[in-house]
Amino acid sequence: MIINKWKIISSEIALKANIFRYLKVKSQSPNTQAIGDFDVVQCFNWVNVLALTKDKKVVFVKQYRHGLEEVTLEIPGGAVHPGEDFLLAAKRELAEETGYTSTNWKKMGRVSANPAFMNNYCETYLAIDAELTTTQTLDDFEEISVELFSYDEIKQLVSTGQIHHSLVVAALYFLAGAGVVEP
Amino acid sequence: MIINKWKIISSEIALKANIFRYLKVKSQSPNTQAIGDFDVVQCFNWVNVLALTKDKKVVFVKQYRHGLEEVTLEIPGGAVHPGEDFLLAAKRELAEETGYTSTNWKKMGRVSANPAFMNNYCETYLAIDAELTTTQTLDDFEEISVELFSYDEIKQLVSTGQIHHSLVVAALYFLAGAGVVEP
Repeated sequence: MIINKWKIISSEIALKANIFRYLKVKSQSPNTQAIGDFDVVQCFNWVNVLALTKDKKVVFVKQYRHGLEEVTLEIPGGAVHPGEDFLLAAKRELAEETGYTSTNWKKMGRVSANPAFMNNYCETYLAIDAELTTTQTLDDFEEISVELFSYDEIKQLVSTGQIHHSLVVAALYFLAGAGVVEP
Repeated sequence: MIINKWKIISSEIALKANIFRYLKVKSQSPNTQAIGDFDVVQCFNWVNVLALTKDKKVVFVKQYRHGLEEVTLEIPGGAVHPGEDFLLAAKRELAEETGYTSTNWKKMGRVSANPAFMNNYCETYLAIDAELTTTQTLDDFEEISVELFSYDEIKQLVSTGQIHHSLVVAALYFLAGAGVVEP
């Protein structure tokens, strides 16, 4: 079977939440002509940052997450503002959330959040020789503590389920693929 | 700063979509006592499957995805039905979407979809010596073609952005970590 794009018959914004819009989309299969109703969640694009210090530790953020109702360990990141460059967003989020900055940046990879029902991407950037040069500038309701882990500790924290955010694990795939760290 | 769980003041189902529920949650910081409104998207848990054939190829599915409005390459997977065991869901999704089955299964890892605003997990299972033993049983509106790729091809498809689903890239991290494939 040849898989083609479906034809969008109609698309209606059913709800505007704080961080996403929910669209009801009616689409038609080019193969069967069947018409179905599909959920689409529109979000801003995201970035996350693997910030490596000179002594080969990675900067993590610990914060309470309202979706899972848990305190999580993640790498710094957040939403790309409308019109903002991904790399600029990565630099901004790293500095705001952790106070770390770097002058040596590299794009590691790009993933789609969940193409089944979400429309956005997350790009991962590597910040090489990151240093603590400024202070956190947190958004309202952000409370973040910064923790540094070695590659061995990260590997262990993933295998024991203490690092579990899908976008962080995807970022670690790019880090391993770049030969920076063994998976 | 010690990061603690917030206290949920109220939680209201604002919308029921086809594949998720949207909750408006009001929560209070244990540190500042500030009260904020947060978006929570409740989904079923998910599974995905790295099915390896005897000749060391991985089973991929090509399908149109309504969120991204694109045809994507992903590994088989889907939602865990309420009350269903994750491994049973993995076996079911692999057989339904591809016709491949296996008698040798191993759990590879578990990620949270996006703890910032989603409440669910995705578990990855390895299906060893998978074989084409049955025919696809597709849901309404599912149109899936099956493609097999070697590890080298997968690595290339990720680096060129043709495999990009975050949950698939996270699954490949677990595959690399198990020593099955180089990242």
